[in-house]
Amino acid sequence: MMVPEREGPLTMKFYDCATAPSPRRVRIFLTEKGIEVPTVQVDLRAGEQFGEPFRRLNPWCTVPVLELDDGTAISEAVAICRYLEERFADSPLMGRDPREKAIIAMWEHRCEVDGFLAAQEAFRNRAPGLKGRALTGATDVEQISALADRGRARVLRFFAMLDERLADCPFVSGEAFSIADITLLVTVDFAAWAKVPMPGELSSLRRWYEMVSARPSAKA
Amino acid sequence: MMVPEREGPLTMKFYDCATAPSPRRVRIFLTEKGIEVPTVQVDLRAGEQFGEPFRRLNPWCTVPVLELDDGTAISEAVAICRYLEERFADSPLMGRDPREKAIIAMWEHRCEVDGFLAAQEAFRNRAPGLKGRALTGATDVEQISALADRGRARVLRFFAMLDERLADCPFVSGEAFSIADITLLVTVDFAAWAKVPMPGELSSLRRWYEMVSARPSAKA
Repeated sequence: MMVPEREGPLTMKFYDCATAPSPRRVRIFLTEKGIEVPTVQVDLRAGEQFGEPFRRLNPWCTVPVLELDDGTAISEAVAICRYLEERFADSPLMGRDPREKAIIAMWEHRCEVDGFLAAQEAFRNRAPGLKGRALTGATDVEQISALADRGRARVLRFFAMLDERLADCPFVSGEAFSIADITLLVTVDFAAWAKVPMPGELSSLRRWYEMVSARPSAKA
Repeated sequence: MMVPEREGPLTMKFYDCATAPSPRRVRIFLTEKGIEVPTVQVDLRAGEQFGEPFRRLNPWCTVPVLELDDGTAISEAVAICRYLEERFADSPLMGRDPREKAIIAMWEHRCEVDGFLAAQEAFRNRAPGLKGRALTGATDVEQISALADRGRARVLRFFAMLDERLADCPFVSGEAFSIADITLLVTVDFAAWAKVPMPGELSSLRRWYEMVSARPSAKA
């Protein structure tokens, strides 16, 4: 556990759900940086995220949330990673200079919007257990089956583009492992679970996947 | 115009489209920071983004793109802003310490995903001129009219949540203007243009909108 520049132990608190893909992005990030934070499991199946205590923390009713030492609640995976990156400088995962930071932010964002959010579209608009829950958040939203199909096709196009990228360089954002690899790894595993597996012929994506999955952080 | 720490003039190049909302996020950011960058207009109506020269720059075939001095092409608005923020430290718009940076990143991300992308869903899945172009990018994608309706409802829920937020503080991320205000401003104007205007009863959102629209950068 890294010790931040303050007195006393870390009083941050991480609101997680061990089975959900969004908080896994933060779990892998924490593991790569070697930070341990006291963790609270939020029972999404029981609807704990809609209860008053959690809603006060995050009116968007989503995990992950990082509660800072002063009580400030940070939601959204990439914002939590930003906090951790700025506070714990060792093992940078979001770049070391303006150019690197921008390249990593670009790939991370693409992986989130065209990969992760598309996989979510494919999954949440079809899964029988998510009827009326086609979007995360406080409001019930009906599924659109045409959107599940479109999301699936979009994930497959995204995989093909990433395969081309990974033919050129070992990691998503270039020569080093970064937060962009974390978002892609979580997307690939989430999509496979949602029955959109990586096509076997995408050999560069597969090579990358095997390498990144072998890192200890992938178990997080 | 700010002078970076290098010899000679800025050779960065900004690929813009004056009528499109995504690059407007960067135009406002540049104006707020007082940076002038040589700009190239990409003719989206004529399909210039699909031509070989632009596709080599950005295989996602979207604007904005910032081409750096060494030829590296950064696409995705938030990644371009990250570069500018890291390179030009004056007038910070993405926070000054880990906590501020995280709060701003959280609100910016919410405004993008629940506001801007939802407005895009509402618009691109219905506009007659965008038949077959329901998503930006290199591939044609059919419109889903149920998604246009869902996007519209989502934008309205987003406006209501931001109205609550802006009852508590003058700007989206707290006491100071930030990139989160830029994303919200562009979302409000884009949504209005897509026939999802801010409801009149959201008085805090309206107060914020009038204040932020009066800044010189809003004309960008």
